[in-house]
Amino acid sequence: MNAELMARFHGVIPAGGVGTRLWPLSRAAAPKFLHDLTGSGSTLIRATYERLIPLAGDNIMVVTGRAHRTAVLAQLPEISDLNLVLEPDPKDSAAAIGLAAAILYLRNPETIMGSFAADQVIVPVEVFQESVREAIYTAATGKIVTIGIRPTTPSTGFGYIRAGEKLQVSGAPTARDVVEFVEKPNEDTARRYLADGGYLWNAGMFVAPVALMLKHLQRSEPVLYAGLMEIAQAWETGDRVETINRIWPTLPKTAIDYAVAEPAAAAGDVAVIPGVFNWDDVGDFAAIGRLNPASEKTGVTVVGGNPRVYSDNATGVVVTDSKRVIALIGIHDVVVVDTPDALLVTTKEHAQSVKATVEKLKEEGVMDVL
Amino acid sequence: MNAELMARFHGVIPAGGVGTRLWPLSRAAAPKFLHDLTGSGSTLIRATYERLIPLAGDNIMVVTGRAHRTAVLAQLPEISDLNLVLEPDPKDSAAAIGLAAAILYLRNPETIMGSFAADQVIVPVEVFQESVREAIYTAATGKIVTIGIRPTTPSTGFGYIRAGEKLQVSGAPTARDVVEFVEKPNEDTARRYLADGGYLWNAGMFVAPVALMLKHLQRSEPVLYAGLMEIAQAWETGDRVETINRIWPTLPKTAIDYAVAEPAAAAGDVAVIPGVFNWDDVGDFAAIGRLNPASEKTGVTVVGGNPRVYSDNATGVVVTDSKRVIALIGIHDVVVVDTPDALLVTTKEHAQSVKATVEKLKEEGVMDVL
Repeated sequence: MNAELMARFHGVIPAGGVGTRLWPLSRAAAPKFLHDLTGSGSTLIRATYERLIPLAGDNIMVVTGRAHRTAVLAQLPEISDLNLVLEPDPKDSAAAIGLAAAILYLRNPETIMGSFAADQVIVPVEVFQESVREAIYTAATGKIVTIGIRPTTPSTGFGYIRAGEKLQVSGAPTARDVVEFVEKPNEDTARRYLADGGYLWNAGMFVAPVALMLKHLQRSEPVLYAGLMEIAQAWETGDRVETINRIWPTLPKTAIDYAVAEPAAAAGDVAVIPGVFNWDDVGDFAAIGRLNPASEKTGVTVVGGNPRVYSDNATGVVVTDSKRVIALIGIHDVVVVDTPDALLVTTKEHAQSVKATVEKLKEEGVMDVL
Repeated sequence: MNAELMARFHGVIPAGGVGTRLWPLSRAAAPKFLHDLTGSGSTLIRATYERLIPLAGDNIMVVTGRAHRTAVLAQLPEISDLNLVLEPDPKDSAAAIGLAAAILYLRNPETIMGSFAADQVIVPVEVFQESVREAIYTAATGKIVTIGIRPTTPSTGFGYIRAGEKLQVSGAPTARDVVEFVEKPNEDTARRYLADGGYLWNAGMFVAPVALMLKHLQRSEPVLYAGLMEIAQAWETGDRVETINRIWPTLPKTAIDYAVAEPAAAAGDVAVIPGVFNWDDVGDFAAIGRLNPASEKTGVTVVGGNPRVYSDNATGVVVTDSKRVIALIGIHDVVVVDTPDALLVTTKEHAQSVKATVEKLKEEGVMDVL
């Protein structure tokens, strides 16, 4: 291991995203990353943070909404004030990750950042960490390095990364060039990608020199770049809050994929490490069914430690933070999510439809439970 | 109408039975008869009482558990203390109905009683009342008169009444002799009964001279008869409570069908009026689905007036007394019963299985929600 190189590494955890498909468990006041969705005893953000400690020590920055400050500090009591970036309101990933890059750049322009969403499940962590190390070596050669996921199904829910030639990078034997990022495909195309073998899921994980990130951001989103640099310059001064409050509302809202990853790929600046760990973005309640063992006795997966779930000829997932008795009878692949003010009953098959329902509730003005 | 005859008529409403198949809505502390299960605005016991007023005036006696005294009085504020018979604990139907017969007999041995369970739904009430009038005329000729229900399906959930020859009773043109009562049949037998046309469902409704009821009770259950007569003799004295407390625990537990109806039928003392009204014993949540209209907008039947039930591509029944948001997505013929301390999720098809689940909960000691 190259200690000097690793010392340049800084983890960044964007903790945004409500996780609407996990409503009513996840919601604006209690987003997905603040839940323990795997029965591990850790919330997703805590597990994400701990995965990065062996790589980054306490050089880990979290970017989240102001509303989540207390909850995030409760999960990450060791984080310093300067490493907790609070967005006045959500502004999509380019602003969140770009601001982290700008702050880190002003601290040390040689920094290599690694950005990992707060709400993903990854095992084994050692395999993940080895991929990140390869990515750091590759980033040091002047690349934005994504960590792609080997697809296991023809998923239409993810964008894909088309990998190219093998790169010759010392310390990164699996690094490849990236030909292009492609948008979420239709089912036929997804099948073709899976059969081709040259495509990886884009899990939004990347490792890159902050200087290179900012170069591409400046080129494609000059207004955003200028605003973020102004906030970053005030970051370690008494003007921090005043400055972010003034500038944040004026910033354009765009995804890091459009602002940086795609133009960088077109410029030949992107590489990929194919991740061989298990990865799940816990996208819906069907995923929660996969990630948690069903009771051997009942066949029902219970998340939330409620000991009062009973079933008779039933299978599915029950997510509950209450102590109510919950009885399932003669129903299969059901999903029951029981919260104090909202109850969801659906099936694993329809788990993806939760988002549309939440959007309808929003239209109907049922805001108190969203 | 024969006013003198009608003046002998006294209604009796046995209000026992938890309605286990309607758990967790119905339970020991809040049995089925205390709920409005049809959206009519009336509880089942109130509707039963009101159906009898045009026939019996205020000559209506209710037999229920002591635990339900306050709830029943809230539903029937007009009932007098002497017409509210409180059982110290449940003792099956022969004791409940037999005690009513004994008390009424001592008041007036010419009384004709009509017994109607507190938890059935009957429309139109006028057609029902006409059947009861026919039953009263028939009872006055010295018969125990059941009101049978024309079967509409080969139900295996009810006992059947095998009707015999037409009787020649003035004022009761549809009265028939009863050949026998038959137990709940298997499916093949039920189909045969339905095809035969001579079988009626036994809905437990009967009209009879109290003297004749007691004669059969004395013959088949002499200990029960003697105990009930002793309680009845103390009924209108200061010894009422002391006497029932002393004797009730010693009484045998048996159904009125075995103690009176079947032996009386064997003796040729039973007649039947075939009821042509709509009748439902609201035996399970599938019945609640039938008895309440589904929302035209959503296809979901909501019982309990919760305005916060949302659905997307879903059908079924939601019973709720909360103001929680309940969302159903992509699930059909589902049954969701949401109470403060217990939640049931099943399907209309499995509505009958609720009873077995409640029995399992009992075995497992989950008593607080039963």
